[in-house]
Amino acid sequence: MQGISRRHFFGAVCGGCLAVREGFRATPVQAQAGGTAAAAGPVRTSRFGPNDTLGNMNLLTPQKVQEAARLVTQGRAYPMGIVVDRSTPAFPPRSVGVTVLMPGQEGGQTFGNNKMSYVDDMISGWLGVGTQIDTFAHLGVDYTFYNGNKAQDFVRTTGVTKLGVENVPPMVTRGVLVDLAKFKGKPRLDGGELVTADELRQAMQQQNVRVTPGDAVVLHTGWLSTLPENPKRFGDEEPGIDGAGAQLLAGMQPCAVGADTWGVECVPFKDPNVVWQGHQILLAQNGIHILENLDTSALVRDGVSEFMFTLGQPRYRGAVQAIINPVAIR
Amino acid sequence: MQGISRRHFFGAVCGGCLAVREGFRATPVQAQAGGTAAAAGPVRTSRFGPNDTLGNMNLLTPQKVQEAARLVTQGRAYPMGIVVDRSTPAFPPRSVGVTVLMPGQEGGQTFGNNKMSYVDDMISGWLGVGTQIDTFAHLGVDYTFYNGNKAQDFVRTTGVTKLGVENVPPMVTRGVLVDLAKFKGKPRLDGGELVTADELRQAMQQQNVRVTPGDAVVLHTGWLSTLPENPKRFGDEEPGIDGAGAQLLAGMQPCAVGADTWGVECVPFKDPNVVWQGHQILLAQNGIHILENLDTSALVRDGVSEFMFTLGQPRYRGAVQAIINPVAIR
Amino acid sequence: MQGISRRHFFGAVCGGCLAVREGFRATPVQAQAGGTAAAAGPVRTSRFGPNDTLGNMNLLTPQKVQEAARLVTQGRAYPMGIVVDRSTPAFPPRSVGVTVLMPGQEGGQTFGNNKMSYVDDMISGWLGVGTQIDTFAHLGVDYTFYNGNKAQDFVRTTGVTKLGVENVPPMVTRGVLVDLAKFKGKPRLDGGELVTADELRQAMQQQNVRVTPGDAVVLHTGWLSTLPENPKRFGDEEPGIDGAGAQLLAGMQPCAVGADTWGVECVPFKDPNVVWQGHQILLAQNGIHILENLDTSALVRDGVSEFMFTLGQPRYRGAVQAIINPVAIR
Amino acid sequence: MQGISRRHFFGAVCGGCLAVREGFRATPVQAQAGGTAAAAGPVRTSRFGPNDTLGNMNLLTPQKVQEAARLVTQGRAYPMGIVVDRSTPAFPPRSVGVTVLMPGQEGGQTFGNNKMSYVDDMISGWLGVGTQIDTFAHLGVDYTFYNGNKAQDFVRTTGVTKLGVENVPPMVTRGVLVDLAKFKGKPRLDGGELVTADELRQAMQQQNVRVTPGDAVVLHTGWLSTLPENPKRFGDEEPGIDGAGAQLLAGMQPCAVGADTWGVECVPFKDPNVVWQGHQILLAQNGIHILENLDTSALVRDGVSEFMFTLGQPRYRGAVQAIINPVAIR
Repeated sequence: MQGISRRHFFGAVCGGCLAVREGFRATPVQAQAGGTAAAAGPVRTSRFGPNDTLGNMNLLTPQKVQEAARLVTQGRAYPMGIVVDRSTPAFPPRSVGVTVLMPGQEGGQTFGNNKMSYVDDMISGWLGVGTQIDTFAHLGVDYTFYNGNKAQDFVRTTGVTKLGVENVPPMVTRGVLVDLAKFKGKPRLDGGELVTADELRQAMQQQNVRVTPGDAVVLHTGWLSTLPENPKRFGDEEPGIDGAGAQLLAGMQPCAVGADTWGVECVPFKDPNVVWQGHQILLAQNGIHILENLDTSALVRDGVSEFMFTLGQPRYRGAVQAIINPVAIR
Repeated sequence: MQGISRRHFFGAVCGGCLAVREGFRATPVQAQAGGTAAAAGPVRTSRFGPNDTLGNMNLLTPQKVQEAARLVTQGRAYPMGIVVDRSTPAFPPRSVGVTVLMPGQEGGQTFGNNKMSYVDDMISGWLGVGTQIDTFAHLGVDYTFYNGNKAQDFVRTTGVTKLGVENVPPMVTRGVLVDLAKFKGKPRLDGGELVTADELRQAMQQQNVRVTPGDAVVLHTGWLSTLPENPKRFGDEEPGIDGAGAQLLAGMQPCAVGADTWGVECVPFKDPNVVWQGHQILLAQNGIHILENLDTSALVRDGVSEFMFTLGQPRYRGAVQAIINPVAIR
Repeated sequence: MQGISRRHFFGAVCGGCLAVREGFRATPVQAQAGGTAAAAGPVRTSRFGPNDTLGNMNLLTPQKVQEAARLVTQGRAYPMGIVVDRSTPAFPPRSVGVTVLMPGQEGGQTFGNNKMSYVDDMISGWLGVGTQIDTFAHLGVDYTFYNGNKAQDFVRTTGVTKLGVENVPPMVTRGVLVDLAKFKGKPRLDGGELVTADELRQAMQQQNVRVTPGDAVVLHTGWLSTLPENPKRFGDEEPGIDGAGAQLLAGMQPCAVGADTWGVECVPFKDPNVVWQGHQILLAQNGIHILENLDTSALVRDGVSEFMFTLGQPRYRGAVQAIINPVAIR
Repeated sequence: MQGISRRHFFGAVCGGCLAVREGFRATPVQAQAGGTAAAAGPVRTSRFGPNDTLGNMNLLTPQKVQEAARLVTQGRAYPMGIVVDRSTPAFPPRSVGVTVLMPGQEGGQTFGNNKMSYVDDMISGWLGVGTQIDTFAHLGVDYTFYNGNKAQDFVRTTGVTKLGVENVPPMVTRGVLVDLAKFKGKPRLDGGELVTADELRQAMQQQNVRVTPGDAVVLHTGWLSTLPENPKRFGDEEPGIDGAGAQLLAGMQPCAVGADTWGVECVPFKDPNVVWQGHQILLAQNGIHILENLDTSALVRDGVSEFMFTLGQPRYRGAVQAIINPVAIR
């Protein structure tokens, strides 16, 4: 059982890591597709036109922003970003750390008669750690990304030349939260627990969550509470949706889909030969951003299911992800 | 003249850099203070109590957040973060860059029958680059920081153990913009142009900008327009306030003071022996965050002087700064 | 003229860089080979057997090492490594830098009654900068490397699992220097100046340089003297050999071929559609290491053409290059 | 007991780490020295003159180099560098790792008609990991380093401006090995096992190891064999000498002292208030380099106690250490 699930996990999930750990490669390019890989067709042209790079961010009209602001009735702001450090589990081989120093102040020196002292900080590591946004440049189908952009045309070692994180406009919109743990009647879902499209639909119905175009949809599974308890387990698996669930959500036209898990989708995958299909459907086929490791705990504790969602991500030129801290306000 | 201003610049501004470039050190610890270094006394205990770490962020009450949301009348969101890359000028020796790669996909491989392709990104460099927040752990007086915290007690190579950027709550508040360029009747102030406390007061009066406790105050100088034109010049000097201006603003109890410059203060400093005194007054003496390189151009173009200000900064544990992208909404 | 040579340079030389700078790609995989690409056939099996990873390092027998030691007659040791720092030109987007700090000593603290003070250092950047060794994992033919190893089988994001720099044995052998500048009767060759195989043969004959199996062959062009004068020019072009010259040298069975240039081969390439063919011939087809940016100036000044060559490269697991400092002793 | 030894360890050994882990500081600057801190006086002027930066490297005369070469009688070369990777234990918070990628080759592209493929590598981390050289800029007494150099005068964030690793000449000299494990009659010494100066003297006498000026002295404890078995234990403690042993060796005028341990000295220190005194004596007071984590296993296995020692360290400008791979030849 353990053996099987590990095989599923490593066989399917992990790119660089599995190669390193096991000398094993996920289905190579010459593999013949089975019947399940619905998304593995060519990426279609965006309904916003062949030159569009914004996807459903196009739906963030002034009306939408105003609607979002009107949701602020209590005056409470919730940080949805988690704290990241060297020990934060992440998709291998990712990690990140900061180093702090006091430049030019060796031996107790200060600057000026006013004795200025200062601390500076360096960062080194990967951007896909902790709470993060996946841009359309992050994941695609057979080297083709959102709106038909080919890796060969825009992926460069010094940064992507299109679809980069610097181009994502402010995400100010209505946010809605679906409490999947509550729906399933437990404090948190299990690792590898799939929330089917049907269950997702039911949960939303039951909890009266209606998505309107341009919303940010946030799924609460409770899984993030595993992180402090068992970081390794947290990073090895997760509950979540699959391709069908992503398709269901895409039909509702949100600007973003997020969760309190590191990958939104159920891992290990149910079919180990179909990996991150939900990402393909959301990012590549529908122009919908993905938000991972969102801290939903306080929102759920306070019974919040609708809120003003705000996100201004750091604008590194050519990056495909960013470590973020969206703020939910209600 | 050039010689003098360079001397002022290097003598005063720069920590690690000047040492490297010129083997010259700013006034060392044993220097006797002149009369101007008003802030160089001991850092006082916070009015929010001896254990406080939030400073004026304490003023962001639910009422304040609600008030901010009510400022959204047009539904327009403005990103205030600039794009950062390897060429972004920054306080020496700071710089930052990303590297993009496609792990485990050498030779055109993909993952799974659904042919998943993905791009990942690494970051390396310093956090004080581009649009940034200075936390209370960034700068102090003679190794003493906000609320009397000593460097020896909380500065660690792997991250500060107190006052770190991960602890700054969401900054959701009323934002106000003072157009200093307009006040001086020119498109942008000059490098090294001091805006005195009196001028600042007059500008605010003239433009009917009233700061209420907990606001984010943003100063527009037009200086950021120098960046694309002449990056070196942009980074070598800047217009701005001084200690007296900082004191004036501190009296109004904002939660943050920002500008469209890389250091908010006038550089070269008028007295080369008094450096970054405004930072000391805001951060260490008053618990007011500093925001640098804010893109104010679109707000000014649209005549916006009051707006909802939102900032969720990445929560790197133990960092003292972060690259940010605040969103102004109105 | 300039336009043509730039096109040659960018069209041919540069991987990541050209893509970034010009959105231009060198001949893509589907290109039809012209007549010149002699090496672009399948990489052949090593004469040292199908499992060999050492190539001509196999020739470093005890006799060879003893022979090398006997060349030490004057007792002079020459560092062949150049100093590297942030400004060292390198193949784009490579660069490297160190950061120095005094951990845990903020405010003038020391450790213990014996007042220990210490300085530590960080490194960040690329390994192919300055004086460097290219291992067999660095460059190949159509994703195939020395002895038929496929990229897909051993290239991993966290390090190659075969042919890595950690596996290169100590290179202790006879070194010989060919003075190509002297041969051409000038202090240094020009950028883009090809030394044909015939010229190379003549130069060796004229200077009585005989290569015996296992030797390290070092080519002196004088080009390194361009580095302090004009770093940009130094990095934009170089004199050197081509595929035919590499083939000539390979026939002599050296363990390594090096030069006082950043890439050993003539750049811009004479045929812009055939790039780094000499590397393919040496590394992939013949198991001969490449050494770049060797400082040969003192050896030439002292008229040394035969010496004991010693190299112990840093053993980073899974790296494909290393910054080195070989020592020539005579 | 455990409590005591841990206290000794953390109290004494570790700079940045202890601060991070325990909020505890080793004796601060204002501490009054006890009687044991023999080295904690002012650093004396070098016997090679007040401007000397080479220390005992001055003793590497042509005669010395020739003498070393004559020790090559068997033609065997031994790499003394260990393999380093992300998991190599190191003095906190040090670590280092490489990342491998194939720039500009997304989707299976190659360069040119000759289908050039290449792999490149990045490095990020600290230089004091694995087999390393400590330069005179690494460690001193109360901010004073070799020959009276003050940290304030040469330590810069972008690299030291004096005594940096780029200035260490090739270390080509006679090497001698003292087998301390054999002396104590066991395969390896224990963590925390002190080899007193008397024992060191006896061991050298018994094994007929005579040090002549300019030699590289290598101590074999067997401790390195702990590394693969128990990396954590390896890094937490080590057998070694103390200040008195360092003084004994310094009297013999070697150019370097090394060991098969990560710090040469016995850790935990016998007097927790006197830390790394051996380093102070060797580096700061006597101009003798320190070499750590030398792989001596093959030399000991082959019964080698005298050999030609060669080291060309990477020449990073301004670094204070380097990851190295000295080669012993006999």
